[in-house]
Amino acid sequence: MKNKYPQHLLKLIEALKKLPGVGNKSAERFAFQLLQWPQEHLSSFADVVKTIPDKLKQCAECGCLREELRCDFCHIDRLKARSICVIASPRDAFAIEETHEYKGFYHVLGGVLSPLEGFGVNKLNIPKLKERIKTSAISEVVIALDSTLEGDATALYIKNELEALSLNISRLAFGLPMGSSLDFVDGGTLARAFSGRLRF
Amino acid sequence: MKNKYPQHLLKLIEALKKLPGVGNKSAERFAFQLLQWPQEHLSSFADVVKTIPDKLKQCAECGCLREELRCDFCHIDRLKARSICVIASPRDAFAIEETHEYKGFYHVLGGVLSPLEGFGVNKLNIPKLKERIKTSAISEVVIALDSTLEGDATALYIKNELEALSLNISRLAFGLPMGSSLDFVDGGTLARAFSGRLRF
Repeated sequence: MKNKYPQHLLKLIEALKKLPGVGNKSAERFAFQLLQWPQEHLSSFADVVKTIPDKLKQCAECGCLREELRCDFCHIDRLKARSICVIASPRDAFAIEETHEYKGFYHVLGGVLSPLEGFGVNKLNIPKLKERIKTSAISEVVIALDSTLEGDATALYIKNELEALSLNISRLAFGLPMGSSLDFVDGGTLARAFSGRLRF
Repeated sequence: MKNKYPQHLLKLIEALKKLPGVGNKSAERFAFQLLQWPQEHLSSFADVVKTIPDKLKQCAECGCLREELRCDFCHIDRLKARSICVIASPRDAFAIEETHEYKGFYHVLGGVLSPLEGFGVNKLNIPKLKERIKTSAISEVVIALDSTLEGDATALYIKNELEALSLNISRLAFGLPMGSSLDFVDGGTLARAFSGRLRF
């Protein structure tokens, strides 16, 4: 970073660098473009950012994002659902909704087990999950976590925790992504696709 | 974009998409990360953004960024400089300063000629440049513009405009970027490096 930048520009660049995947170069590009925005755009952007905590709250029940008092994902038309889908972040709920494959409840963990980042089992929000399983008479739990080492560990932990409740527990399938060619798929994916092969 | 997103989240994503090179996916990533920022970080980021027009103004003389009343680039220790460097944006001045190769004035055009984007010769700020050349008794003009079609056209236009003033006009050299191998350099660069070869 150029040391000669004015103080305010440095502050702006520092703030922008906290966004995911944004390093010095990108933050500089963003900052210099923001300099060209008209005052009213800057103000409305600043207002949107500042009011995030007021406007976007987490549902106390499922942990998903809700705008008003009502949570779309705990809504009355799902009350008959008997399945709950365990996800790491509120964002995943939107992605799963988009597939139209699932019409049940969600349960946001807030992350996956990651000892190095200080995210341990006590942060996983499991007691609330157990409570919801009982109150809503849930019979199926779908674990929709990343296919990473941390996701695997978290899925295993949840499975063990819920074992006593005689539920139908499943996890998202692993295999070839849509439209991929075998040449370009990594060995791990291919191995999991192979071992999970289905009768055709 | 998922239609189910809350209204405020959509607003945030729309604002972030105005940053250069940020599409739907990146804007969503940025937005969901902003949701996790603590209130005080959001507020200070919002304040920095909102106060950009107050805090970062352009120098009336050279067009570079200045923080206080004083412009670093028109500063008293340069008053003896007899050269002026023509640049497209205030950002370029910082990049050139970083090289320690140049210790003269700057003149910001505000862009390069681009008829499609409505940036014509009347926006180039040439009268001010001529005025400064006279008042400061400038003897050398360095044109530091992009090596693009628009940069070439702008450089040519400026050269023609200043021809009558009997100045030493130069443009940045074109050639191989540092550390590049001939195999990976495009034909245009190679051709210009060839035609601009220097006695060794």
